[in-house]
Amino acid sequence: MRTHFQRDLDQMQQHILDLAALVERAIHHTVDALQTRQPSLAREVIDGDEAIDREENFVEEECLKMLALHQPVAIDLRRVAACMMINMDLERMADLAEDIAERAIAMSRPPLLPIPENLQRMTDLTTSMVRQSLDAFVNLDARLARTVCRLDDEVDRLNKDIIDELIKLMQEKPTLVEAGLSLFSATRHLERIADHATNIAEEVIYLVEGEIVRHRPTAFHEKG
Amino acid sequence: MRTHFQRDLDQMQQHILDLAALVERAIHHTVDALQTRQPSLAREVIDGDEAIDREENFVEEECLKMLALHQPVAIDLRRVAACMMINMDLERMADLAEDIAERAIAMSRPPLLPIPENLQRMTDLTTSMVRQSLDAFVNLDARLARTVCRLDDEVDRLNKDIIDELIKLMQEKPTLVEAGLSLFSATRHLERIADHATNIAEEVIYLVEGEIVRHRPTAFHEKG
Repeated sequence: MRTHFQRDLDQMQQHILDLAALVERAIHHTVDALQTRQPSLAREVIDGDEAIDREENFVEEECLKMLALHQPVAIDLRRVAACMMINMDLERMADLAEDIAERAIAMSRPPLLPIPENLQRMTDLTTSMVRQSLDAFVNLDARLARTVCRLDDEVDRLNKDIIDELIKLMQEKPTLVEAGLSLFSATRHLERIADHATNIAEEVIYLVEGEIVRHRPTAFHEKG
Repeated sequence: MRTHFQRDLDQMQQHILDLAALVERAIHHTVDALQTRQPSLAREVIDGDEAIDREENFVEEECLKMLALHQPVAIDLRRVAACMMINMDLERMADLAEDIAERAIAMSRPPLLPIPENLQRMTDLTTSMVRQSLDAFVNLDARLARTVCRLDDEVDRLNKDIIDELIKLMQEKPTLVEAGLSLFSATRHLERIADHATNIAEEVIYLVEGEIVRHRPTAFHEKG
């Protein structure tokens, strides 16, 4: 029974990794579309969201089936519950990537707003948080999960820098206000994707150490 | 066994309703704080988030205990899974209310931005969506859940009106750009709270009709 459960869980984790790869790609493409003013690429991201949603629904159904079939307890139960939570986080990341794509389409029309340099760095950091949070999950690596949580502070800092730059720009050129709001939204969405990666990392720490670390940022970051 | 499970589930639903009432109050207070420039009220909302997080952690732990103890299958399993999802949505709404409170504090300092009239209407609509989505859950009322989903379109419309008003304001008075971004954030957060209420409503439809309606807004709204 235990090995059958383990095999199903491994398969589930593989599905989650596949989903995460799709999400990571969507994030890269959506920011590319924004930076290079390619509405067609942004539309690809929007169209691709359906496949992500299908995969997410599949994982949720499979998790419920696993609960019904194996009736896992203790750590096994927690792992299935974690799969469900992580699945939800990934789906919301994909939705945010789609929202960024919509902003990218709006921003491809003049007047063109200069894109702050830090956006690419923020994107790279965010996607690496997504990847590492999933690695931490699959390998039950609480140490790596704590690294992800610390990276979130850096994302927040970059987000703040970009917003400060945007405020100046919008004050100097009122014609850029609307495009500025679009980029403001896109940046905030990216920051929230990083928050979801942090949620996953916190879920991993909970899984490994049995302690709920969410909502305790200070104590928790100090510990890392 | 069934009645014991039912009793535990009833208790769990009561906890979720208590949590929802806290969240609803937080939303009202946070928007009040923003509109009446009361940073102290905003700080109360921020301080109150800890109690909400504790309640949310409690519900999550209890759900896992219920799964382990009763090993529910079929519809019972779905109901516990729904409790977990709804719990997560409520916690995120509370986080968004807290984010709005931070914006309210920022906006209580000059230069003061005129608050668009539609904000109160959007807030009332959003909290009524929260309340009705929970009513739909407790009474397994798919019809009411569909009403909630339709109200979300009205929230989106109000959100758009407010943003249009803000753009004009920021273009005319560059000194209001920073405060304008704060209100833009706050409004978007409110809109996302309504999205979470919609998530709950969709979860209810799934629970009652066994069909995943998420990610299919068109077909689904037509059906309602």
